[in-house]
Amino acid sequence: MSLTFFTPGPAQLYPTFEQHLQSFVSGQLGSISHRSQQYRDLHKFTVDQLRILLNVPDTHAIMFLGSASEAWERILFSCVELESFHLVNGSFSKKFCEYSTALNKYAHKFEKPMGEGFTADEIEVPEYAELICVTHNETSSGVQMPVSEIHKLKQKNPDKLIAVDMVSSAPYPDLDYNLIDTAFFSVQKAFGLPAGLGVWIVSEKCLEKARQIKNQYSIGAHNDLPTLWKNALNNETPATPNVMGIYLLGKIAEDFNKIGVGEIRKATEQKAALIYDFVEKTSGFSSFVKEVQNRSQTVVVANVEASSADIIKKIKEKGMVIGSGYGEFKGSQLRIANFPATSYDAVEELVQELGNI
Amino acid sequence: MSLTFFTPGPAQLYPTFEQHLQSFVSGQLGSISHRSQQYRDLHKFTVDQLRILLNVPDTHAIMFLGSASEAWERILFSCVELESFHLVNGSFSKKFCEYSTALNKYAHKFEKPMGEGFTADEIEVPEYAELICVTHNETSSGVQMPVSEIHKLKQKNPDKLIAVDMVSSAPYPDLDYNLIDTAFFSVQKAFGLPAGLGVWIVSEKCLEKARQIKNQYSIGAHNDLPTLWKNALNNETPATPNVMGIYLLGKIAEDFNKIGVGEIRKATEQKAALIYDFVEKTSGFSSFVKEVQNRSQTVVVANVEASSADIIKKIKEKGMVIGSGYGEFKGSQLRIANFPATSYDAVEELVQELGNI
Repeated sequence: MSLTFFTPGPAQLYPTFEQHLQSFVSGQLGSISHRSQQYRDLHKFTVDQLRILLNVPDTHAIMFLGSASEAWERILFSCVELESFHLVNGSFSKKFCEYSTALNKYAHKFEKPMGEGFTADEIEVPEYAELICVTHNETSSGVQMPVSEIHKLKQKNPDKLIAVDMVSSAPYPDLDYNLIDTAFFSVQKAFGLPAGLGVWIVSEKCLEKARQIKNQYSIGAHNDLPTLWKNALNNETPATPNVMGIYLLGKIAEDFNKIGVGEIRKATEQKAALIYDFVEKTSGFSSFVKEVQNRSQTVVVANVEASSADIIKKIKEKGMVIGSGYGEFKGSQLRIANFPATSYDAVEELVQELGNI
Repeated sequence: MSLTFFTPGPAQLYPTFEQHLQSFVSGQLGSISHRSQQYRDLHKFTVDQLRILLNVPDTHAIMFLGSASEAWERILFSCVELESFHLVNGSFSKKFCEYSTALNKYAHKFEKPMGEGFTADEIEVPEYAELICVTHNETSSGVQMPVSEIHKLKQKNPDKLIAVDMVSSAPYPDLDYNLIDTAFFSVQKAFGLPAGLGVWIVSEKCLEKARQIKNQYSIGAHNDLPTLWKNALNNETPATPNVMGIYLLGKIAEDFNKIGVGEIRKATEQKAALIYDFVEKTSGFSSFVKEVQNRSQTVVVANVEASSADIIKKIKEKGMVIGSGYGEFKGSQLRIANFPATSYDAVEELVQELGNI
């Protein structure tokens, strides 16, 4: 039986995935040299499609890493000489913060319990922090920070760099890259691809900062920003990249562009409304995130009175896979991904079956 | 027209690749959680098959990274507090050395011109070097260091750690992991898979060293050895891994094991003999590497009197792709990969067509 995955990543593969994979195989693209014009054209196609999709200006490069977690490290190496500042409200924002400590930086943090969000007004960025690290969508708790609050935070702190983790939400957040210095995501979430590729969007300002830090400290050796940037100018990467992942990502981004990112965002909100409406109105279910503006549009987290394992098992019998809560909430919550790969009809079917349990 | 790739990576895909890819897709493995038992079983299968293939004892973990270049960085972070030592005789051994400098370590080196190799007897390891970095197969020049010389080098220096880059030769070198502390490779060479995955074999001794270094220095944040190791014990990875690459690698390793690694090594030598024989006996061609024991069995580099670009073009018209020389040798050399994906018959056809030019 073919299953439909509503898991927050790896997730349901995008419907056109198999067709693009077939083109990759029949074109023998797994064997082409990563120093050939054929590769550079493929690379440029993906960058161009992402630039259109996410409205990324030429001041920012779009680069490829092994994962979004690698982006955490490369951003901290490149943008922080001594001190970073982190908004922490879940497992992934916490890991970003811990990476800073592991690189021997001083990591300031403003921490809230899981399920709670942040507004720009309440955030005081420490004087010597060089970088503000924000998680647009906390995959562990289903909390999002509204894009308007992220923009406001940068406007309040124009002299700091700001990094946005949009791992499990891109291309949903409409970030203004005149304000955002760097952002990143991975492909196994809303892009509906197998895991193994991270995308790093990064500005000239970050590059300058990396060059300046390098005079005194290590900024890493593998995929260090100046080397990545130099290669990106030539549509290449320093090491042999995940050519298959880059190709497939370009094709999916092209599919998204044909639909239009506005349509994709609207559809995301419509499907999210369907899930939240169900969760709010159905006995035995409630939304973990109380503040409406902090509710993620791409990963819905619901408290459940019954055992989450039982619900997951019963729903799987209907051909659908949903995620458990994260960490301590494993048994008492469900996480339901709402990515472009799952249609409105599929979400309708899911909430109907959840209601039948 | 379908092409046969004799390029040194990305290379010809292994004949069973498409069939395994189809199983991956039909099993919906691109959507499974990397924290599920299904993933842990898949992960363990690949590790077990590699352990059999490469004869890796339980003192060593087998772990997955984004690329072999990432392994350079992780090894230097984990095994070098202050000083490393590098045998440099080409572009890739040089990059390994430069990574050490970029991490603010002191990188000693013993350097020879491209095309020349090393013997254990001539190598004096500096007193304070903690790690000896050896490239078994220098992809840029086609020089290999005999495994017996690598083993001898460690026996001469039992108190130093030794790292072996076998990116473009594994599973050919029969390393003795009672002597070798760490080794690594990537999958787009002799394993005939698309790029995007590095494999890192690493001993408990390296783990101890990493823990000791961590008391005083950063050992990196992303995929740091203690965290990788802890996850590997549970057949998991710290971040979402390249599940597709790990699955395919396990299947190809299983295919290799069915043939037997001894057979694969013998076939590699037979095919290499065919190419070297042609290169030595044909006017207009000569082997770049003069010392027979230093001639790579997996990447043959030939000097050519005609323009390499012309030869490459003419051979492509016959449905075969060969590589140009590396860097300054681009125009005057050919690089011909000899990996398991290309059969004896295919190599025979290649040398025949090269002879017809």
